[in-house]
Amino acid sequence: MAEPAVVEFSPTPDQYAWTFGGAAPVLEVEPGSVMRLWCDDAFGGRIRAVTDLASASLDPRFLNPQTGPFSVRGAEPGDTLVLHLVDLTPARDWGASTLVPFFGGLTGTDRTALLDEALPETTWIYELDRARGTVAFVAQRSSFSVDLPIAPMLGTVGVAPANREVRSSLTPDAFGGNMDTPEMRAGVTCYLPVNEPGAIFSVGDGHYRQGEGESCGTAVEGAMDVTLIVELVKAGAAPAPRWPRLENDAELITVGSSRPLEDAWRIGQKEMISWLGELHGLDRLDAYQLLTQLSLAPLANVVDTNYSAVTKLSKAYLPRTDPYGGLHGDLRARAARL
Amino acid sequence: MAEPAVVEFSPTPDQYAWTFGGAAPVLEVEPGSVMRLWCDDAFGGRIRAVTDLASASLDPRFLNPQTGPFSVRGAEPGDTLVLHLVDLTPARDWGASTLVPFFGGLTGTDRTALLDEALPETTWIYELDRARGTVAFVAQRSSFSVDLPIAPMLGTVGVAPANREVRSSLTPDAFGGNMDTPEMRAGVTCYLPVNEPGAIFSVGDGHYRQGEGESCGTAVEGAMDVTLIVELVKAGAAPAPRWPRLENDAELITVGSSRPLEDAWRIGQKEMISWLGELHGLDRLDAYQLLTQLSLAPLANVVDTNYSAVTKLSKAYLPRTDPYGGLHGDLRARAARL
Amino acid sequence: MAEPAVVEFSPTPDQYAWTFGGAAPVLEVEPGSVMRLWCDDAFGGRIRAVTDLASASLDPRFLNPQTGPFSVRGAEPGDTLVLHLVDLTPARDWGASTLVPFFGGLTGTDRTALLDEALPETTWIYELDRARGTVAFVAQRSSFSVDLPIAPMLGTVGVAPANREVRSSLTPDAFGGNMDTPEMRAGVTCYLPVNEPGAIFSVGDGHYRQGEGESCGTAVEGAMDVTLIVELVKAGAAPAPRWPRLENDAELITVGSSRPLEDAWRIGQKEMISWLGELHGLDRLDAYQLLTQLSLAPLANVVDTNYSAVTKLSKAYLPRTDPYGGLHGDLRARAARL
Amino acid sequence: MAEPAVVEFSPTPDQYAWTFGGAAPVLEVEPGSVMRLWCDDAFGGRIRAVTDLASASLDPRFLNPQTGPFSVRGAEPGDTLVLHLVDLTPARDWGASTLVPFFGGLTGTDRTALLDEALPETTWIYELDRARGTVAFVAQRSSFSVDLPIAPMLGTVGVAPANREVRSSLTPDAFGGNMDTPEMRAGVTCYLPVNEPGAIFSVGDGHYRQGEGESCGTAVEGAMDVTLIVELVKAGAAPAPRWPRLENDAELITVGSSRPLEDAWRIGQKEMISWLGELHGLDRLDAYQLLTQLSLAPLANVVDTNYSAVTKLSKAYLPRTDPYGGLHGDLRARAARL
Repeated sequence: MAEPAVVEFSPTPDQYAWTFGGAAPVLEVEPGSVMRLWCDDAFGGRIRAVTDLASASLDPRFLNPQTGPFSVRGAEPGDTLVLHLVDLTPARDWGASTLVPFFGGLTGTDRTALLDEALPETTWIYELDRARGTVAFVAQRSSFSVDLPIAPMLGTVGVAPANREVRSSLTPDAFGGNMDTPEMRAGVTCYLPVNEPGAIFSVGDGHYRQGEGESCGTAVEGAMDVTLIVELVKAGAAPAPRWPRLENDAELITVGSSRPLEDAWRIGQKEMISWLGELHGLDRLDAYQLLTQLSLAPLANVVDTNYSAVTKLSKAYLPRTDPYGGLHGDLRARAARL
Repeated sequence: MAEPAVVEFSPTPDQYAWTFGGAAPVLEVEPGSVMRLWCDDAFGGRIRAVTDLASASLDPRFLNPQTGPFSVRGAEPGDTLVLHLVDLTPARDWGASTLVPFFGGLTGTDRTALLDEALPETTWIYELDRARGTVAFVAQRSSFSVDLPIAPMLGTVGVAPANREVRSSLTPDAFGGNMDTPEMRAGVTCYLPVNEPGAIFSVGDGHYRQGEGESCGTAVEGAMDVTLIVELVKAGAAPAPRWPRLENDAELITVGSSRPLEDAWRIGQKEMISWLGELHGLDRLDAYQLLTQLSLAPLANVVDTNYSAVTKLSKAYLPRTDPYGGLHGDLRARAARL
Repeated sequence: MAEPAVVEFSPTPDQYAWTFGGAAPVLEVEPGSVMRLWCDDAFGGRIRAVTDLASASLDPRFLNPQTGPFSVRGAEPGDTLVLHLVDLTPARDWGASTLVPFFGGLTGTDRTALLDEALPETTWIYELDRARGTVAFVAQRSSFSVDLPIAPMLGTVGVAPANREVRSSLTPDAFGGNMDTPEMRAGVTCYLPVNEPGAIFSVGDGHYRQGEGESCGTAVEGAMDVTLIVELVKAGAAPAPRWPRLENDAELITVGSSRPLEDAWRIGQKEMISWLGELHGLDRLDAYQLLTQLSLAPLANVVDTNYSAVTKLSKAYLPRTDPYGGLHGDLRARAARL
Repeated sequence: MAEPAVVEFSPTPDQYAWTFGGAAPVLEVEPGSVMRLWCDDAFGGRIRAVTDLASASLDPRFLNPQTGPFSVRGAEPGDTLVLHLVDLTPARDWGASTLVPFFGGLTGTDRTALLDEALPETTWIYELDRARGTVAFVAQRSSFSVDLPIAPMLGTVGVAPANREVRSSLTPDAFGGNMDTPEMRAGVTCYLPVNEPGAIFSVGDGHYRQGEGESCGTAVEGAMDVTLIVELVKAGAAPAPRWPRLENDAELITVGSSRPLEDAWRIGQKEMISWLGELHGLDRLDAYQLLTQLSLAPLANVVDTNYSAVTKLSKAYLPRTDPYGGLHGDLRARAARL
C-alpha cells in the first residue's frame, strides 16, 4: 500500500475564505489525501480579552474565516465527498466566547426583529489547561468559576452549494456549512453531496467545546489544528446524500438545517429514513416507525441563519451496518496508521 | 421513622381522566405518600393487533387516558409539587404503535393543514420479552425485524393548569402534561408548579420505549405499573418553577413546550438559567454563557399540540448541587427502602 | 312575521366570564333572538390614563372579560352557530392601549422566551370624537398626534371548545375566541362549530380600531355596545365548519389560528377550499389554484397565544354565492328592520 | 429639461440571469434612465398547455429567469436604488400556473420534509382577453370556470446581496428578489439597499394576477413588457433602507422575508417603524403603537425559500409624507410624460 499524499496548509489572513462557493480553490487534492490544516477561530482571533467586545472588535463582513476551499480531483456533481476527521487539537492556549449584539438564541435578531435593546455586551475568555484537558469558565457578572473538559469540534464543514448559489460561511444548509454540531469531532466521517466540479470544500470554526444548541451564538471559539482524510464516492457507486450524513464507530447521523426548527428536524429525519432504506431495504413507513422508537435528536444550533438539528441512530440496534462499503472503518484504520 | 402511607389505585375505564384540570379528584393523598398505580396505554388498549387501525379503533374524544387526578393535601398555588418515579414496569406483554391519520411529525396535521392524503394507516405490535428486557420490532411493509431494549417511561405527568384552563391530556405545557420525554423514567424527580388547590395531578401514557421526538406520534405504547412518591415544597421554602423541572442522579433537566420548536427550546433554556441563578447565584448572562458550552438539548416530541424540548445539565460540571434541600437524594433513599 | 325576541344583557363585574367553556351560561336564548349587549374592554376598564401602567393596573388572571356565555336553545354538537353583528357602538368616550410587559409582536414573550428586559411600559389614551367618528392618537415619547377614523370591531367571539377543554378568553382557536381580526365588524355574519350542547358563546374585547396584526398586543381597547342576532343551522342542513367562517356582503372569510403563523394561514386556506367545494363543487386542487390567484390574506393577530390569519375571497369573482341558503342576506334584512 | 435616456433590452435565453449577485451585468445604465424591458415567465415559457407538467417540462436549475442584471452608474454600497414601475403589460396572450411537486403552501416541501407523496401534477392555462382585461380560469378536475380581472405585477425585483452572497432568483430577502407581492405593480416606486458597486439589479417573474400568499406556489405566470425608471439616492442624502420599501400614491409599504412567517412580518414592521422615525421623528415605541392601530398586513408569499409579509400604511392617516424628497411624485410625473 502506497503512502497517502499529505497536504499541509495554513492560510494567511488574506487567504481566508468567507463563503461556500464563489471563492477560488487554494489547492487541489487527490482523493485519499491526508490534510494537515490550521483554522483560525470564528472571530479571526480578534476577541482575545474580556475587554474585547463584539461591536468594537468585529466586522460583520469578516466572520467565520474558512480554511480552503480545496478542489478534489475528479469530483463531479452527483458524487459524494467524504471527509474523515482524524484529529482536532486546539492551536491556541485560550478560547473566547462573546455576546454579539442581536445574535443568539435568547435575544432578538435581524430576523426575529424586535424593539428590545441588545443584551449587554460581555466576553468570556477560557484558558486552556492542556495537561488536564480543560478550559476554565470564569463568570463575568457574578462570582463563579468551573473547569470544563475540552471536546474539540468543527462548527463548519461544507462544499459549494447547488444551483450557482454562494452562501456566507455563517450559513448551514444542504451543503453542510456552519452546522455547529458537537458530533463533528475527531473520529467522525462526514458525507456531503458534490454540487460543483471539484466539490470545493472548506473547514473552520473550531470550538474547544460547545453545548447542543450553541445558545448564545458563540462556543468556546478557538483556532484549531485539523488532520483529515479526503475521499470520494462516485455517483455510480452510491447516490449522493441530499443532506449531510455523519458516521462514527457507534452511530449513523444526519443533520438538517432550516427554519423553523421543526423543519430542520424533519429534514434530518427524512434523510435518515432514506439512509435506512438504502442500507436495509426498509419501506419508508417502517423506517419512520423505527426512528420513532430509536432515534436520538440532539439540537446542533438554534442561532445561525438556519437552525440545525441532528438525528442519530445507534448501530447497535441495527443489523450489521457498513454504509458506503465500509468506508468509515477503512478510514479509521488509515487514520490509525498516521 | 414512620412507614409512609401507601396508596394503590387502578382505575376502571369509567374512572379515566381525559384532561388536566376540569376532572374531580379520585383520591386525596398526603405528601410523603407512596402510590402504586396502573395506567392504561394512550389508546385505551384498543390497538391490540396489526389489523387494528386508528381510524376504525380510536375515538378522538377518548385518547390518552390519565390515572387520577389526585389531590395533594395542603397543596396551594405557589407551592411546588414533587413526584418521584420509583418504578415503571410494563403491565402487558405487548406494546403498540400506529399511524394516526394527520398526526405525526412527518405528515400534514390539523395545524400544518395541507392538501395531502393521510399516510397509509399501519400498526406495529411489539411483543415484550421480559426476561431479555426487549420488545420486538417487526416491519409491516418490508422484511426486517430487530429486538430493542425496553426503556420504560411516562409520556404524561401533569397538574391542573393555571387561570382556570382545562387542557386535553394530549397537551404539554407549563403544567407538564403530555411532554413525551424519555427523561421521565424511573429514578427521576419531577417538580411542577401548583396552580390550583390540591395540585390535582395525574399520570399516564406509558411507553415501553421511545426515541427523542416521538417521530410518528406514537411510541411503543403500553399499559404501565407505576410506583411513585408524592412530596410538596411549600412556597415559603422555594419559588415554584415556571415550567417543569426534572432531576436525576446525574442531571438537572427543564422541559419547554410550545410552537414553533425553537420557542419550546427557548423556554427550557430560560427556565434552566433561572434554576442556575437560584442554585449558584449566577447572573443571567453568565448562566446563558455556561449553558452555551454545557447544555444538552435532546428533543422530546415534535408531534403533540405543543412541541417539547429538553435542556439538560450534568451535575458533574457544577459545584455540589442539591436543589430543594437535597430532596431528590432523600427520595432516592426512601425509594430504596420500599 | 313575529317580532324577534330581544334580549338585553349588561354584565356586572362579578358576571364576567374569563374562559371559553367552563363557565355557566348567564342566559339561554332562542335562535332568532336579537341581543343588545354591553362588553367591557379587555383591561376591565382599569387603564384609564397614561399613568395607568399594565404591571401596576392589571392582574393577569383577569384579562379580556367576556359578556356571556349564552346558551342557545336547541344547539347540539355538529350544528353551526350563527352570529350576525348588527351594530357596534363605542360605549365610552375614550379607548386605551398599553404595552404589557413581555407581550406583543416585537418583544420577547412567555413563549418566545428571551433574556431581554421588558420594553418600557407606556400607555396611550385615545379620546373619542363621536361627531367626527375619530379617535386621537397622541404620541407619548415624541411629539406627534393625529386623528384616526374609528372602525369598531370585536376582538373576541367564540363558543365552548371541543373535547372538554376550557380555554382562556385570550386564546383564539377552532372555537373562535380571541382572533382579533378587524373583519369582525358590524354587518358581518360569523359561523362557528357547535361543540357543546347550547353552543355556550360569548363576546367581548371591543376595539375602536385596530391594524392588521395588532402589533403591540393591544388595540384601541374600549367598552362596546353590541347588537347581534343569533341563529342556528342544524347539522342536517349543512356541515359545521371546522374553523370560523365569516361572511359580509362582499366577501367570504375564514380565520385560522395556530403557531407558527404559516400554520394559521394554512388552516384558513384549507377551510376556504372546503367552503368552495361545498358551494361550487370545486375539486380541492382546483380550489387551491383559484385561491392562489384570488385570495386576500390580511393578518389578524401576531401576538396572542395562537396567531390568527385571514383568508378572504370576493364574491364578485364567483358565481352567485349564497352560503347557508342565503342566511347572511336574510340576517342583513332582519337587521335593517330593527 | 433633457429627454431621459431610454434603454431597451429583451434578453435572448442565453442572456437570462438565474441569480441575484454572481452574474455579469448585461448593460450599464445612468440614473434617470427609462428602461423598456421584456421578461420571460418563471417557467421560461415551457408550460404552454394543460398537458405540460412541471416534472417533465421544468429543470430546477433553470427557474425564474431574470432580465438583467443591470449596473447603475455611480451606485455604491450605502446608496439607495430606486426603481419606479411605469407600466406592466402582458407580453403573451396566455398565462400558466402549475403544481410543482413538493412546492407550494399546502403541501410538504424540501424544507417541511414529510413522507407524503406529491400532490397530483396539474396545470392551468389562462387565456387573456386584452379587450376585457381578464384571464379565464378553467378548472381541470371539476366543472367550473370564471373570468378574472388581470392585475399585472412583478414577482421578482432585486439587487446583488450583501456580504458576497449569490442567491437563486427564487429567493426573497433583504436584497428584494422573489418577494411575490401584488404591491409590485405599475405606479409603485421600489427602494432597495445598494450592497455592491453598480447595485446590479434585475427584474422578472411577471404575474398577470396573484392572490396574497401565492398559495400553490405559481401565480398566473406570464411574460411581461416592463417600463421602469431608474434612480439613485446617494448615501449622503438618506440612509439606505435595511429591507425593501415601496411607495405608491396612497401608501408606504415595507416587505420582510424570512421563516417562520411571523419573522417576515416582524422585519417589515420594524422597517416601517424606522421609516416613520425618519419621516416624522416618531420614537420607536410611539411608532409601534401607531402601527398597531393603522398598519395593514397582507401576506405576499408563503411558498418561497423565505416567506414574505407586507406592512402597509396609508398616507392619508399621516401628516404630509414625501419620503426621499418627494421622489415618488417626481417619478410619477416623469412617467406621465413618457
